[in-house]
Order: sequence, then C-alpha cells, then structure tokens
Amino acid sequence: MTVAHPDSGVFEALESEVRSYCRGWPTIFDRAHGSRLHDENNRPYLDFFSGAGALNYGHNNPVLKRALLDYLERDGITHALDMMTAAKRTFLAAFREIVLEPRELPYKVMFPGPAGTNAVEAALKLARKVKNRETVVFFTNAFHGMSLGSLAVTGNAFKRAGAGIPLTHTLPMPFDDHPDGRAPDFGWFERLLTSAGSGLDTPAAVIVETVQGEGGINVARAEWLRELAGLCRRGDMLLIVDDIQMGCGRTGAFFSFEESGITPDIVTLSKSVSGYGLPMSLTLFRPELDVWEPGEHNGTFRGFNPAFVTATAALEEYWRDGRLEKQTLARGDQVGQALDDIAAGRPGPAPAVRGRGLAWGMEFADPARATAVCARAFELGLLLETSGPRDEVVKLLPPLTIGDEELEEGLALFGRAVRETEGPDSRKKGGNTP
Amino acid sequence: MTVAHPDSGVFEALESEVRSYCRGWPTIFDRAHGSRLHDENNRPYLDFFSGAGALNYGHNNPVLKRALLDYLERDGITHALDMMTAAKRTFLAAFREIVLEPRELPYKVMFPGPAGTNAVEAALKLARKVKNRETVVFFTNAFHGMSLGSLAVTGNAFKRAGAGIPLTHTLPMPFDDHPDGRAPDFGWFERLLTSAGSGLDTPAAVIVETVQGEGGINVARAEWLRELAGLCRRGDMLLIVDDIQMGCGRTGAFFSFEESGITPDIVTLSKSVSGYGLPMSLTLFRPELDVWEPGEHNGTFRGFNPAFVTATAALEEYWRDGRLEKQTLARGDQVGQALDDIAAGRPGPAPAVRGRGLAWGMEFADPARATAVCARAFELGLLLETSGPRDEVVKLLPPLTIGDEELEEGLALFGRAVRETEGPDSRKKGGNTP
Amino acid sequence: MTVAHPDSGVFEALESEVRSYCRGWPTIFDRAHGSRLHDENNRPYLDFFSGAGALNYGHNNPVLKRALLDYLERDGITHALDMMTAAKRTFLAAFREIVLEPRELPYKVMFPGPAGTNAVEAALKLARKVKNRETVVFFTNAFHGMSLGSLAVTGNAFKRAGAGIPLTHTLPMPFDDHPDGRAPDFGWFERLLTSAGSGLDTPAAVIVETVQGEGGINVARAEWLRELAGLCRRGDMLLIVDDIQMGCGRTGAFFSFEESGITPDIVTLSKSVSGYGLPMSLTLFRPELDVWEPGEHNGTFRGFNPAFVTATAALEEYWRDGRLEKQTLARGDQVGQALDDIAAGRPGPAPAVRGRGLAWGMEFADPARATAVCARAFELGLLLETSGPRDEVVKLLPPLTIGDEELEEGLALFGRAVRETEGPDSRKKGGNTP
Amino acid sequence: MTVAHPDSGVFEALESEVRSYCRGWPTIFDRAHGSRLHDENNRPYLDFFSGAGALNYGHNNPVLKRALLDYLERDGITHALDMMTAAKRTFLAAFREIVLEPRELPYKVMFPGPAGTNAVEAALKLARKVKNRETVVFFTNAFHGMSLGSLAVTGNAFKRAGAGIPLTHTLPMPFDDHPDGRAPDFGWFERLLTSAGSGLDTPAAVIVETVQGEGGINVARAEWLRELAGLCRRGDMLLIVDDIQMGCGRTGAFFSFEESGITPDIVTLSKSVSGYGLPMSLTLFRPELDVWEPGEHNGTFRGFNPAFVTATAALEEYWRDGRLEKQTLARGDQVGQALDDIAAGRPGPAPAVRGRGLAWGMEFADPARATAVCARAFELGLLLETSGPRDEVVKLLPPLTIGDEELEEGLALFGRAVRETEGPDSRKKGGNTP
Repeated sequence: MTVAHPDSGVFEALESEVRSYCRGWPTIFDRAHGSRLHDENNRPYLDFFSGAGALNYGHNNPVLKRALLDYLERDGITHALDMMTAAKRTFLAAFREIVLEPRELPYKVMFPGPAGTNAVEAALKLARKVKNRETVVFFTNAFHGMSLGSLAVTGNAFKRAGAGIPLTHTLPMPFDDHPDGRAPDFGWFERLLTSAGSGLDTPAAVIVETVQGEGGINVARAEWLRELAGLCRRGDMLLIVDDIQMGCGRTGAFFSFEESGITPDIVTLSKSVSGYGLPMSLTLFRPELDVWEPGEHNGTFRGFNPAFVTATAALEEYWRDGRLEKQTLARGDQVGQALDDIAAGRPGPAPAVRGRGLAWGMEFADPARATAVCARAFELGLLLETSGPRDEVVKLLPPLTIGDEELEEGLALFGRAVRETEGPDSRKKGGNTP
Repeated sequence: MTVAHPDSGVFEALESEVRSYCRGWPTIFDRAHGSRLHDENNRPYLDFFSGAGALNYGHNNPVLKRALLDYLERDGITHALDMMTAAKRTFLAAFREIVLEPRELPYKVMFPGPAGTNAVEAALKLARKVKNRETVVFFTNAFHGMSLGSLAVTGNAFKRAGAGIPLTHTLPMPFDDHPDGRAPDFGWFERLLTSAGSGLDTPAAVIVETVQGEGGINVARAEWLRELAGLCRRGDMLLIVDDIQMGCGRTGAFFSFEESGITPDIVTLSKSVSGYGLPMSLTLFRPELDVWEPGEHNGTFRGFNPAFVTATAALEEYWRDGRLEKQTLARGDQVGQALDDIAAGRPGPAPAVRGRGLAWGMEFADPARATAVCARAFELGLLLETSGPRDEVVKLLPPLTIGDEELEEGLALFGRAVRETEGPDSRKKGGNTP
Repeated sequence: MTVAHPDSGVFEALESEVRSYCRGWPTIFDRAHGSRLHDENNRPYLDFFSGAGALNYGHNNPVLKRALLDYLERDGITHALDMMTAAKRTFLAAFREIVLEPRELPYKVMFPGPAGTNAVEAALKLARKVKNRETVVFFTNAFHGMSLGSLAVTGNAFKRAGAGIPLTHTLPMPFDDHPDGRAPDFGWFERLLTSAGSGLDTPAAVIVETVQGEGGINVARAEWLRELAGLCRRGDMLLIVDDIQMGCGRTGAFFSFEESGITPDIVTLSKSVSGYGLPMSLTLFRPELDVWEPGEHNGTFRGFNPAFVTATAALEEYWRDGRLEKQTLARGDQVGQALDDIAAGRPGPAPAVRGRGLAWGMEFADPARATAVCARAFELGLLLETSGPRDEVVKLLPPLTIGDEELEEGLALFGRAVRETEGPDSRKKGGNTP
Repeated sequence: MTVAHPDSGVFEALESEVRSYCRGWPTIFDRAHGSRLHDENNRPYLDFFSGAGALNYGHNNPVLKRALLDYLERDGITHALDMMTAAKRTFLAAFREIVLEPRELPYKVMFPGPAGTNAVEAALKLARKVKNRETVVFFTNAFHGMSLGSLAVTGNAFKRAGAGIPLTHTLPMPFDDHPDGRAPDFGWFERLLTSAGSGLDTPAAVIVETVQGEGGINVARAEWLRELAGLCRRGDMLLIVDDIQMGCGRTGAFFSFEESGITPDIVTLSKSVSGYGLPMSLTLFRPELDVWEPGEHNGTFRGFNPAFVTATAALEEYWRDGRLEKQTLARGDQVGQALDDIAAGRPGPAPAVRGRGLAWGMEFADPARATAVCARAFELGLLLETSGPRDEVVKLLPPLTIGDEELEEGLALFGRAVRETEGPDSRKKGGNTP
C-alpha cells in the first residue's frame, strides 16, 4: 500500500504546532458518511474514533442531514443567542418529553455555549455560587476541558502545565480502581470531610465521569458511583456528572449514570448531543439550583439553531424507544468478548481490556505499543486513538449506528494491528508501510 | 400594534433563569434573511444587532448558504477535530492569501475551539507560557468571555462575581478616555513598569479591544493604541488584541487595529469569522510565539468544517477587494451623522454619540432610558441592545451588508424610539403598546 | 474560695476582642517561678500549660535568669538583626556541639524571625524555591501558625476562615489515626503521587508535627513517620517536621522525631528554644537546600541576642547529657498511668488518653466537659487548656523541670477536676465557686 | 587601620546563606550602649542605623534597662500569651493615657505576635474580614514584611520571588512621587474605583507607609496622604498605615501620620515600640472594626511581658511631654541641611536628599557608589545601610536620643565617606583600608 503524500504544505506552514490528530493520521480527509471517512484520494477509513465521541450516530447521518438541509434551505434562523426560536422550542419540548420525563429527571436546561468546556465552566460556576464555597473535588485522570476552570479539574499534568498559572481551588481524589478487587474506598475522603474543620475547606462539589474517556477508559463501578453520591449528600456537596463523552448513549442508556441509579445534581452534555458534529452543549441541574441571574453567564454561540434541529432529529430517531440502548449493550458485550480474545490470543502477558457499552480500551504495558497499534490500524484503514495518562490505552469508540459487518471488520482490523505490532521490531513498524 | 403572545411555556418551565435576550424581545423567532428576522407570526424585525457582531454579512447570506448547502449535500466531512481536511486547507490558503499576506501579517493560525472565549483562553495560555509569567493586564469595561481565564480579564463586576472564586493574576488599567481631551496617559502604568521590582510582577501580556463593544462602544484612539503597543514593546509584554467583536470588518478594515498601524503579537477572532453564525474562532500569533506542544490545548469542536466552508466563501466574496471596507467606512460616517442629528435634535443635554465603522453607541444619562429606547424599538420592529457597565448605551451594530434603504429605515426607527421615550413618562412607555 | 475581681477594666475597654486565654483564666498574673504563676493577690497556680510549650524549663528558670541578667547588666548587644555577635556565635557553637553533632544531623541554621510562624514561613518558602513547585501537603488538625503561609497548612476551619482569602497551594491528608489499629495507610496519597500527572500537581514538600499539640495531642506512630519519610523520598518531596511545640525535649529527646529514626529535610523550632519565653525561632535544613540569596528572607527581630544567651544556657544545663531526656520519658510513663487511672475510675465510657513524653491529652466525648474540667482546675489552682478541633481534649503540658511533688499534686488536682465535673450539673459548675 | 579578622568560622559553616548584614559589617559585635556598638576588639561604631528603626531610644537605654532588670529580678512573669498580667495592664493604661487620649485616637489594641509582619498580617486579615473582600492596594517600593500576607503587599521583586508562589489578591499603585512637582494624582486609581464594576474588584483596604524606609526614604507629602485618606473614605476602603519603621517618633510625632492630620482605620506598630529591641508589635484599629472572634488570630509570643515593661518605661520617659518630638524635628532640619551641604559640595550632579524627622536618605545615581559609601563609613566607624529598589540610597537613621556631638560626628564621618568614594576608583575603595 502506498500513502499518497497529501498537499499538506499550508498546514505545516500556517497552522500552529499545537495541532495533533493530523500528525498520527497523515492524510487529507474530505468526505464522510456513516462509519466511514474518505480522504482526498477516495481512500476509505473505518471510524472507531467517532470524533472523540461527538459522532455517536455516525458521520452525516442521513436522517439528521435531511432535517438540517430543510432548515437551512428555508432560512431557518441560524444564530440567535438566547432569544426564543421555534427550533429551540422544539428541541426543549423533545428533550423534556423523550429524555427527562421518562427518566423522572427534574432538570432545568442551560445553554452555556457551543463547547463542552463551556458546559463544565457553567457547572462549576453554578456549584460555587449555590454553595458559596470555592473548592471542587475531581478525580485522577479526569478530563473536563481546556479553559481555566475546566482545566483546574483535569488531571493530565501536561495539559495542566499549559495553564501558565497554578490551578487552584480544586482537590484531586483517586478514581475508582476496581481491578484490584478492593472494596469501594472513600475512607480517606470521608475522614477529611467528617473531621469538620480539619484542614479540608468543605468542597462545593465533586465532578466525575462515569467512564473516563481521555483518562484511558477507566470504568467506575455502579456501587462506587452510588457511594460517591451518598458521600456528596452527607457532605453537602453537589455531584456533577460530566457526561460529555459518555452521555448520548455511548454506554447504552442516554445518560451514562442511569445504570447506577444515581441522580446527579448537575449534568454536562455536549459532543453527540447535536448528533451531527455541530457545536452544542448543555448544562442540566436540579431546579432548586437555578440561582442564575439573567445574563450572569452568556456567550455568542449558545443558540446555534441548526444544532437544535439535528439534536431534535436525533432524539426523535434514536431515543423514542429503547432499541438503540439495547443494541449498544449487546454490541458492548460483543466488543468486550472480541477484545478479550485478542488480548488472550497474544503471547506474553495479556493487555488489560475494559469498557462499558461501546466505549472500550485495551491497555498495553508499553505506551509505544499502543501508538504502534494505532499507526498500523491507520495503515490498514481503521481510525483509532490512544488515551490514558501515558497514551498507553488504545481506545475503541465506534459509532453506535455502525453496521454489524463494519463492527466485525473493525475488530478484525484491530486484531490484525495488535498482532502485527508484536515483537521486538513492532515499534518500528508503526508508521511504516508493511 | 398587538404582540401576539407566543407559546413560550417550555422556555419558562425548562430553560434556566440565566436566559436574557429573550426577556427583552418577547417573541419566537423562526426565519431570518439578510438584515431581517421573522417571528412565528411572520412579523419582520430589522436587525441593528447582528448577533452581537456574529452576523456582519447578514443572516443566512445567500453566497455563504450556497457553499454550505453544497458542502453538506455532498457529505463533506463535518466534524474533524484537528485532522487535515480539504475544507480546512482551502480556508487556510484563502486566509493567508486574502487576509494575512496583503497586510504583511506574519501570523500562524490556531483553532482553539468554537467560541470566542476559547480563543481568548488560548491567547492567555500562550502569552503566559512564552513569557513564563502569570500577570495579564486588561482594561476597565473590557469583555473577553465567560470561562474562568477570560472572565479574569473581563471588567464587569456582575459577571466577575459569577466566577465563584476570586479572579487573580490579572490587573485592570483605565481604558482610553479621550472625550476629556487629555493626552494619552500611560504615565502611572509606565511608572509601575519602569520602577522594576517596585511591586508590579511584570505582566506577560496586555489584552485590549480597540473598540469595547460590550463595554459601551468605547473607542480607543489610534494614537492611544500606538502608545500602548510601544509600552508593551518597551516593557517586554505581549500585546493581545481581542478582535472578536470588532474584527471581520466591523470597523471598516478586516482587523480593527489596521487603522492604527500596530501589529499585535496575538489576535483573537471569532463571531463573524465563519460569516454565517457557525461557531468558529481563531487565535493568531507571531510565528516565534508558536511554542505549543502538540495537543497542549485541544477541544472537540475546533475543526467544524462547515464553518471553514462559509468562512472561505465570506473571504472570497467580501475581502478580495476593498469595496466592503470602503462602504463600511462611508456608512459609518452616515450613521455617525444621523446619530449626532438625533442626539442634537432632542431637548435637554445631548446624549454622547461614539463609534467607528459600523459600531455605534448612544449613551443616555439614565440607563432606564436606554432600556426604554430598545423596548420601543422592538415594538417598532427594530432590534437594538444596550451595553455599557450600567446598560446605559444603546448599541447599533447593523449588518455590514445592509441595504441603503434598510439602513435609513433603521436609523429613522431608532430616532423615533428616542423621541418617543422622552419626557417624564418615557420609562413607562418602554414595553407598552403605543 | 473567693476569686477577687481583678482590675481588668483596661483590658475590656482597650484590648481587642481577639484575646482568649484571659477569658478562661480571669485573674491578673504578676510573677512566675518554676512551675508556678502567681496572680496579683499572690495566689499561686500550678502550671500544666507551660506557655503552650514555650516554657519547658519552667518560668524564669534561675540558671537562664542568671545568664540573662549578666548579659543585660554588662550591656551585651540586644538587637542585632543578622550581624555577627559574640552571643550568637556562642549559641551557634553550642547548638552544633550539643544538639547537631551528637545526633549526626547535618543541618544549617537560619534565624527567620522571632515567632514560630516565621520559621514555618521560611521553611515553606525554601521548599518551594528548592523544588520550584507550589503545592505543600499538610495533615488534618495540623497547626503551624497564623500568617498566611502557615495558615494555609493549618487545619482548623475557624482559623482558616480568618484569612479572608481562600488558602491555596496546599493539600490536606489524614493524620495518623492509629487508635483504630489499622495499618499505616498512605495508599491513596501514594496513588495520587504515583499516577504521574494524574491530577495532583507534585508537591514541593510535606509538613508534619510528630505529635499534634493544638490538634488534640494526636500522636503519630514512629512507623507512620518512617513510612511518610519514605514516601517523601520516593515522591521527591521535602519532609518538613514542625517541632515548634514538641521539640526541645517535650517528648523526651531534643527533637521529637529522633525516636522514629527519620531525618527530616527541614525542621522548625521555636517556643522553648530560648528556654525563657524570649521570642526566638530557628529553621534548620540540609546544607544542600541552602539556596537562599543573601537577604531573600529577613526580619527585624531575627537577632534578639538575649534569647541566644538563654538558649545557650539551656543547652548547656539540660542537653549536655541525657538526664532530662530520661526523666521526661519516665515521667511520661507516670503521667500516662495516672491519666489511665483517672479515665478508668470514672463512671461511663472512659475518655481516651494519649500522649508522648510530657505531652498528654484526655479526650472527652462532650467538649463542654473538657471546658468544665479546665474551669474547675483553674478554681483549684491548676492551669490547663483544651485543644482539638472541637476543644474536646484537655491538654497536659507540665514543665519538664517540674518537681516530683508538683507533678503528683497537679495530677491529683486534675483528677479532682475530672471527678467534680461529672454528672448532669457538671457543666454549670465550670466557672463557679464550689 | 586594621580590621582584625574575627573568628567568624561558625557563622560561615553553620548559618544559612540568607544572612546579609554581617556581610557588609565584617566584625563580631559584643556590647552596645546609647548610640554606639562595640565589637569584640572593643572598637566602637557610631550607629546611624538604629536596628533598622528598632532602636529609636538607642542601645540598652539606661532608663529602660533599669525597668527591665527590676522586672526580671523580681521574677515578673515573662511569657504569658494573652493572659491578663500586671505588666500588660500598666502598658495598656500608659499607652491609652500617653499616646491615644492626647491625640484623640479611638483605637483598640491588638497584640498580634512579636514581629512587625505579624502586625501587618493581622491588619490585612481584619480588613478583609470587615469588608468581606479580598483585594488590598499597596504602593510601589513598599515593604511590609516577609510572611506571605505581608509579602503580597511588598514591592521588592527579589523578595516577592522568594515566596515561591504567585502573590495574589493585591494591587500596586504608584507611591507619591513629588520631586517632579506634579499635583497629587490619584486620577487613574479613582477612575478604576469610580467606574464601578469596571474591572477592579473593590479593594478591602489600602496599606501605606508615610515614609518608605526600605523603599529608599520616599516621603509622602501630607496632602498626598490626605487625598489618599479621602479616596479611601469615598471608595469604602480601609486605610492602613504601616508605622512600624516610621512610628514611635522617628519622624517627630509619635505616629508619623499625625503631621498630615489623617486618622487611619488601622495602624501597625513594632520595632521601637518596646524601646529596647525586645520583640513586640501592635495592631491598632477603630473600635467598630473589632470584629475578631476570641482566638481567631493568635501566637505564642504575643504576650512577652518584659517588652511591655520597657515599652511602658519608654512612653513615660519620652512621650509624657513634647520635648523629644521637638528635638527630633529640630535635628531633622539640622540633618537635612548637613546632607544638602554634603550633596551640594561634591563635583558632578548632586545626589538627591530627602527625609523627615530623623529618617534621611541620599540617593546616588550609581548604586555601587551607595554601597561604597556604606563600606567606607564602616571603616571609619559609622554604621549606615543602603535601601531603595536598587540599593541606591544611603539611609541615615540615627537614634532619636543621640547626643549633639555624636550627631555632628556622624554627619562628618558620612561626609567624609561620601568624599572619599568619589572618582573613578571610588568603588574599589569600598571595603579597603585607606
């Protein structure tokens, strides 16, 4: 196989060195549909990455596309800040009817801006305002965003250092670490909390991902989440679930926390909420927390109406009934089994496999191996990225709407990439043509 | 005139109290085209607001719309993070050829996320990293965004208080205050800077808007900007121009700082850069500042390709030649004259009028009057918003592409709103049917 | 017994409401000698408080007094900042010969100011400078001082709130909690540390008291301290032992950490170091940490020569041999036994008794009882104070030089105070005349 | 002249590199009396330094010494925290009668710890608590102490950097800069304050020295101080005068602010308040600000009774009448005249001379010259130190009680040191034997 050298000169000359995905996937993408991207040379790539969770319904999903084109063609209002619009009303009504009411979730809805980090910033502001306290607890290997508020609750040292100022008013706690079979252990946190005035300034809130995506597909157990929710209740702290990457069905149910039975005080959504890759985010919270003054938080792109249109279409198409959820759970079992087989079938110690729904990870002892697997997969036409604190985990995030054959094909390619990166020369192979 | 009561129940029941524009404009918007929005009852509103500067080319501009529909219809890739795409390449090449090269601006381009505040956060991070210092200077009445980094350089006390934590590592300075005819005065700032080690931790950067939009259409003089640039040079501080609201031609030239002849070290753009209200932002900086590590700043929606498509179309349509710039400057004179006439024609002390290009403000001694003017304008079918620290300034931000008759019509309606809110009962009139 | 009403009007009229000890001991003290204070009416009080640990050698110890009077009479220099003086040289030589060399402690000596909190501030500054990191770990219920740096590593919520600003750059950890018989557990701290870049900005240092005095006489086990020292070594963090209250022989050996065999990187001393209640403090550190620039930390009273004189006399008198240390350990056993007897002899659940050397505490379930015990003891002529997060622990800190009969007498009075505050009316009795 | 090499080995081997005065004055001091120190070789040094302002009444003042010895001999209580003692009562009564009442100052008195920085920390805490705000304004070249709270309002960059963390919640302003003859100018500060919510988080307080000692003997004009006081009143900010170095008569009156007629809300005193170099400090404040809770701020050495004894003796001896004040003002004129003569008599541009009372400075264009002057003075038997941001100012701070002949002698020696450091070789001469 030959990778044609794309005309990427303008990227190299003009775009900042901060760019990253383009370094591992050295081609120029042009079109995309469903589970496949195509580059300029019309070479297809199977997508086990899904826009880092922003494309749960695949690329340019035809149902959503139709709704979007109709809206644009008839000059539906595009940009409307937080004016009332017909498209927004329809979205709100659908969100209430399809998402909130069946789950008996009492949330009010805030449109905090187009990006996930805006939703997190709004959640942190609100929690601090409600409780009139500064400290927020977060977890090791958490990822919540790149603006300063979100970055202060993000674990990654490299990204934290980018802040250029010390990140304060936050406190890290160990994330659930269940592989070692230990009981859920909030002992030390509880000790800090209960010895009142012992040294911990009582936190306003705890922010958690039920499955840490960027952190390496670390899955919190349902009982750990329940215990955390109890701890928050007893400790008078708000519980924020950041469901930006794991919500919108990624783990099966619409919200990733449904399985555990907890009801967070605040929830953030973004990525797949518009369903089409259109920038949109939501901050949800219990009505009694709605102490915002009008305009206290704002933003130019918080009312991007085409996103409301595709978001509504996605809810109507996929969440009126439980089929997608069931399918995701079933496919999750399938993927888990396949990964276990791949892991077990290799010589040497088996890499760890973990996941929930259609979010899966395989952790390699050597981070270079994970990189090599992704590089080999790219050569084979499969998009995969690494995650985890040392980039040691290959992350599998196929579209929820992927076809059965595509899923099998992707798993087979992944298995081949794992196989073909074994041995002393494996690292060198990454990035080379076989 | 009768305002039909729209079915706004779901907004009131479900949307957070933080919503604000909808409170002053109590109708349900549905469609928009050029300089007009239409509500559900098909009532048209002339737009002197332009999405707070995000719609410089009007609503659903047909040239941009055609490009967007074509792209969507052919399944151009929508969501691509910072992968290389054909649409992004085209945008970068056009931005270089049409914007940067003719102005001899050496900038590299970073895609920091979809919202303006993401561009500001990236600018602040980069400045602090480059200089290895924490402090950033900002100006009274500045507005740079709602995430914690941007909020720390924003002046408004109400919005700052929303942070829930003290905002540190920043230092306010008085913005240019030319109406009093005094010479440009950076005396005290220079004294702080030059008595090295005197108490001021040397700032990494200064962030400034050339015209403060949210702050009340406060216009910095070109000589003040030049003096500031000189001060930054002598004081080894980076100069960041936040051109999010005033860039993309709002003041005439593509960048609002061109008139003064300065070359900022870092520039932020957003709002009208996509031209169609699609979320997009840019952080530009001198190449020697490009010390980012790959992935040190990231974000899910930093590669929203439909925005690249409309952004390219806007550059091609409006910035290949100088016609739009000339037209904006000419219209600026026209608007300034009209506002002066309106101000002078009224009894009592004349409200202050100020502006540049097509960004204008009329400041009323009584903030309630400004609110009443906007309310009356809405009744008359004209969208206007207030700004300034006490909401005492009526802001006029018509689309740059507005037709001559529309501009005249809008100015006439504005004059009428001013007139009809005079007198002891004026405030009551606001919001009532005449 | 009748407590004469002292003429305390000027205190009430002129002294700030912040005063506190005077509220529990409502008399005017005038003279003091050895283990006894006398008030204006010549009423004696046996001292089981020792100036909160500043009077380990008793009040106005005659050996030290003679040296002090001689020095003052001959016009020895009193105030000398950090000039070289004969008195300082003698102290340094004695400290090296009597304290450092026999213990093979390699420390350099810094005179950071007169108060303990100055020593802590210097220790924290130095640690942050050496490691070029901001975060310092402290322990629940720690007390290190009232200036902002020290307060940020102090646990007490009431005192922290007095800062008036959020206290940042510090992280609390649970102090050793050995009564529950669990193994030393730094598990979660180690997890935070070892998942590099997981969310914890690597701390510059850990600051710890071996026995928390203000925190309620909480005694860290030797193995816990050793494990902590190991953790610091592995985690590249400096270990600071704040020996201000527990050093100078309070727990037996000169330094309280000697028993555990650890060698801290930095040690703070104050309180009893001058031996006579004269303000003096020291910060000790490994020579390779001595990266201070000349004058980088300073202070007017860091060279108070009369304190050097009494400090030298105390070293010569009490630390040339091991007699005081042995006596303190033996008396510690005696006090512990007596307290156990007092605790066991009472109806109801026995209060917890804990201590090391001559630092002991008895913890009552009801804080009001601890207050009542101290109030009754005052009536009986014994000075005792409460400590602990809820003031629930009666603290016993007799002079190390107390006579055998005085020790017995004090323990008997304490036992009587405990006895006489039993029962439903006990609290009312506190403060009343029997 | 030959400087005997003192046996300073233990200082070099054992004392931290942070030591500084000993580097410029390489001898071992032993005794001191009045305006003279003596080294081990019995060489006398005339003191124009006065313990950096801690020895306004000279070394080991005989009146104070007698009171101190009497107190110690009779076993007066030495260390008493904030218990009531007879010595403290006597001090409080004298302070009220001799200092507060004649000046109609309504202050309450707090004993915040032994050092000046403790007084500043308490002042800042109290101001922030009273106003429930974080920000405190300070002035360029201010010096308020080395603990973190005080350091955050200190100007010197070298000392600030020693903090090891960014110093936040404070804002620098230019100190009065009257030599340029400009009108008092708080224009920009007032602009920041009056455009409410413009960017400046309203400060809790402003802290100022009337004459900056460490900053280079910068003298604020009375009208500048009055304007500042007015600004604080209008801006609802507390005015804190740090009178630690300039109080206790250094500028003539007991408080340095008396001349201007202002009444600060909070005043800090230390250094010469005990009069004998014994560590002691006070925080004074208007009674309505006394919102402290009992024990909210504390400290081991806040009740050092020998200091109360000497402080009382100093008040009785020097402040019952106006003689010392008058003498200081007269001598101030004398010193000012002498310095003008010295400055004018030299070739080249005259160094700036400035001062008030008995605090004077001569500023040299070349900091090396100032250092050379001090070094030459030491050789000649006169102690002088430099100050100012670049150590460019020779500071003259003789005891207020200096004899007439001693004052003349010192001025003559200073003139000689200035003379003998002229010319191209002057710098080399510093430190050499002539």
